[in-house]
Amino acid sequence: MIRRDWIKLLAASSAATMLPIPSLTAGPFEGRRILFQGDSITDAGRNKEINEANNIQALGYGYSALISAQLISDNKEFQIYNKGISGHKVFQLIDRWQKDAIDIKPDVISILIGVNDFWHTLSNGYEGTVETYIDDYRKLIDQTLTALPKVKIIICEPFVVEGGTAITPEWTPAFDGYKKGSLAISKEFKLPFVPFQEYFNRALKSAPASYWCPDGVHPSIAGSTLMAKAWMETFKRI
Amino acid sequence: MIRRDWIKLLAASSAATMLPIPSLTAGPFEGRRILFQGDSITDAGRNKEINEANNIQALGYGYSALISAQLISDNKEFQIYNKGISGHKVFQLIDRWQKDAIDIKPDVISILIGVNDFWHTLSNGYEGTVETYIDDYRKLIDQTLTALPKVKIIICEPFVVEGGTAITPEWTPAFDGYKKGSLAISKEFKLPFVPFQEYFNRALKSAPASYWCPDGVHPSIAGSTLMAKAWMETFKRI
Repeated sequence: MIRRDWIKLLAASSAATMLPIPSLTAGPFEGRRILFQGDSITDAGRNKEINEANNIQALGYGYSALISAQLISDNKEFQIYNKGISGHKVFQLIDRWQKDAIDIKPDVISILIGVNDFWHTLSNGYEGTVETYIDDYRKLIDQTLTALPKVKIIICEPFVVEGGTAITPEWTPAFDGYKKGSLAISKEFKLPFVPFQEYFNRALKSAPASYWCPDGVHPSIAGSTLMAKAWMETFKRI
Repeated sequence: MIRRDWIKLLAASSAATMLPIPSLTAGPFEGRRILFQGDSITDAGRNKEINEANNIQALGYGYSALISAQLISDNKEFQIYNKGISGHKVFQLIDRWQKDAIDIKPDVISILIGVNDFWHTLSNGYEGTVETYIDDYRKLIDQTLTALPKVKIIICEPFVVEGGTAITPEWTPAFDGYKKGSLAISKEFKLPFVPFQEYFNRALKSAPASYWCPDGVHPSIAGSTLMAKAWMETFKRI
């Protein structure tokens, strides 16, 4: 090998490591705005410092990013945002809805919320019930439709993957109420519904929870891909 | 809303933010091992603390993750790794090849390297030439095939997206030599080749560099999706 200037190489390597954020954004097309909202499943490690649309780091490592890759590739008009925050329950979406949903003026809002509304009653002293969940969810949808009468809202079913390490017997049948609650909200407001539970139940016939969703709540890359497929099935019909 | 214990909620929220790493891994199936190797385009912000296969954070935000999502979803036997490192040139792959390639015992190694072999001659005083690149690339392939005679190696073409903010007139036609060099290596060793440049050139007819690859080197999510499609076309034929 030829002589190389190692100090300069090191500097070059460090500079390249700090990728400029705009380089990972597909833009600047204006068009149909889609917003993903929810808890840690939607958050999926997204970079919360980045607010622009279609940025791969801002979209996180989850189903939203996989869906976005497909949508952006097929249609250059989409502007996609992810504002999921780990640990959130439906009332916490209400608390930040103006800033993290209404102000973005999305054409489509996809909401996946509910697992913490139940989970945190087991482990964190949260006192909300399934009725709290449904009542708060109704307020959230009312607020959204009042502010954005033309928005299309997609209700995603909260799910639990049986066999996951975090899933104790207490989840069954208690968590069913939250799944049914999200379906009831979708019916009440005539909103499209993504039946994630059914997809995971079918997937469990070909591989265990460790493959799709090791702790039963947070999907692996395989589980995120499954969610993206389920979501696209619903999205194609709206 | 009912009374809520905010301190507990805060604790719950923090705990949920720290996702357990194994929960994002699809496993524990054993099977065909695929390794992605290269520079920042492959690295794509991957978490280098995680060494297990099929982990969405370890796969990064780039084309490798999008390919993995597709492969893992279709076939439960794949074990996929990404060991790209930002700023690397082909000689730096040689330096870490035993640990970051041979020791992983992959069945398939996909290599995308070359942009820094040229770029760093412009901006960072790197003294390698296109001959250095080809000679070093030949050593890398020789070393690989000696250690792993049955491995399938996929050569990915380094590319430049015209109109990107980092692309100066100095790139043309000088960078062509590196693209041709990677093709020459693929022919010399009869290895499958992914013609990324052709895909980006075609894509530029429907949207500018700002959409696919803003700086001309690091793809957006749209560009990464395009790369995943190109790669799959080659992979299907091996």
